[in-house]
Amino acid sequence: MTAPTADSMGRFAPVVEGRDRGGDLILLCDHASNAFPAPWGDLGLSPDQRQAHIAWDPGALGLMRGLAARLDAACVAATVSRLIYDCNRAPDMVGAMPARSEVHEVPGNTDISSTERLARTRAVYLPFQTAVHELIAERIALGRRPAVITVHSFTPVYFGQPRDVEFGVIHDADDRLARAILAEAEARTDLSCGLNAPYSAADDVTHTLRLQATPYGLANAMLEIRNDLIATPATEAAMADRLAPVLAAALARMKEC
Amino acid sequence: MTAPTADSMGRFAPVVEGRDRGGDLILLCDHASNAFPAPWGDLGLSPDQRQAHIAWDPGALGLMRGLAARLDAACVAATVSRLIYDCNRAPDMVGAMPARSEVHEVPGNTDISSTERLARTRAVYLPFQTAVHELIAERIALGRRPAVITVHSFTPVYFGQPRDVEFGVIHDADDRLARAILAEAEARTDLSCGLNAPYSAADDVTHTLRLQATPYGLANAMLEIRNDLIATPATEAAMADRLAPVLAAALARMKEC
Repeated sequence: MTAPTADSMGRFAPVVEGRDRGGDLILLCDHASNAFPAPWGDLGLSPDQRQAHIAWDPGALGLMRGLAARLDAACVAATVSRLIYDCNRAPDMVGAMPARSEVHEVPGNTDISSTERLARTRAVYLPFQTAVHELIAERIALGRRPAVITVHSFTPVYFGQPRDVEFGVIHDADDRLARAILAEAEARTDLSCGLNAPYSAADDVTHTLRLQATPYGLANAMLEIRNDLIATPATEAAMADRLAPVLAAALARMKEC
Repeated sequence: MTAPTADSMGRFAPVVEGRDRGGDLILLCDHASNAFPAPWGDLGLSPDQRQAHIAWDPGALGLMRGLAARLDAACVAATVSRLIYDCNRAPDMVGAMPARSEVHEVPGNTDISSTERLARTRAVYLPFQTAVHELIAERIALGRRPAVITVHSFTPVYFGQPRDVEFGVIHDADDRLARAILAEAEARTDLSCGLNAPYSAADDVTHTLRLQATPYGLANAMLEIRNDLIATPATEAAMADRLAPVLAAALARMKEC
């Protein structure tokens, strides 16, 4: 992704792709970017830290785009690092602008003033969520109720512990689509799969789904892929090849309900 | 309210008032207006029909403003008739652009094309809901989690049947604030009160609360006042005098929880 630029109001719009595609699926990647643009800059992090999973979900953007192309879906990607504002968190959640992520301090997020919290909310969170809401509401107005799937990646080692799961499917209040995806993944792939793994909605990781899909009663789920499996464009594409039929079959199941 | 005008994109922004007020309460009036601006015009309705409860909630705007002033609250009012787009309905709900309301046909809403549904969603629904979302998210970013209360009025006679209830309080999934308001209204006024009257969330009347308050876990409720009780500026102000202490006491109860 090219370096993001703010509009005249200082807002960082997300990238919306495939708006005119015909599929009734919307894919979201709220942790797509490890860009640290002005006025925030690097938050005092090293280049290695800014490349690590704390700054973004490595591979998730490429995988989402690959899935969107294969499934004729629209997709939306955040353009700023989750450490500046994590769009999958409400503005008062600790994780929205975290002072610590896993074992890393984030110096630029220590003692953020309420004015600064408001500024980042306006600059990053609201443009992302407004663009997603517009896309969803417009599809609904046309009589095309989309399913909403968020695409994430997770680190193979967390607080020193290796994670065995390769593909996690997380649900919020409505578990139908997540369970359908899990069943299809277990039937169609040899990935080590887990429901609500490596974490669950109880960890406050489903904000975007709660905000965007639940109010409209849209089928929804959150995907988590272990990031060592999507570390290059080639493996991102290979994973999209594996998971696109899984999602297509799960969405077809939902229509039969 | 003065006649609304669209921006260069054809969008009718709502009126936001009291943005800088200090109270942690946001009041919403999605049926504030009986304006029928171009490009839609009167939808084939008579002047009497455009003044009637099918076009708006008479008295609700004045009551909301009176409550907002007394409670130091911010408030948001829609600027276009609910018959052009009912902002308290999702774009695929029948009631969003109804072809019939109570005993009245709405000629301009018969056989609306999907293109027209999309255009009205963009012009009326999205600007209203986006402005409300921005107001709420900004308060949350500042550490001020607001309660959200929608203000409505209902007709004394519906399908020929008189309605005895004078003040209804409707809840969605979270009933805490609605029950607190009801208890305070019964204790402090002689209004004929009802919980989930004259209708309830099962009638799809809580869309704005589901979209705006529930995802953030904000206390919320919907008020319904019989419109013969708020038919003039003087009675709107008198009702605001009666209900402001009710809401203040209910909100104080919530803080004790």
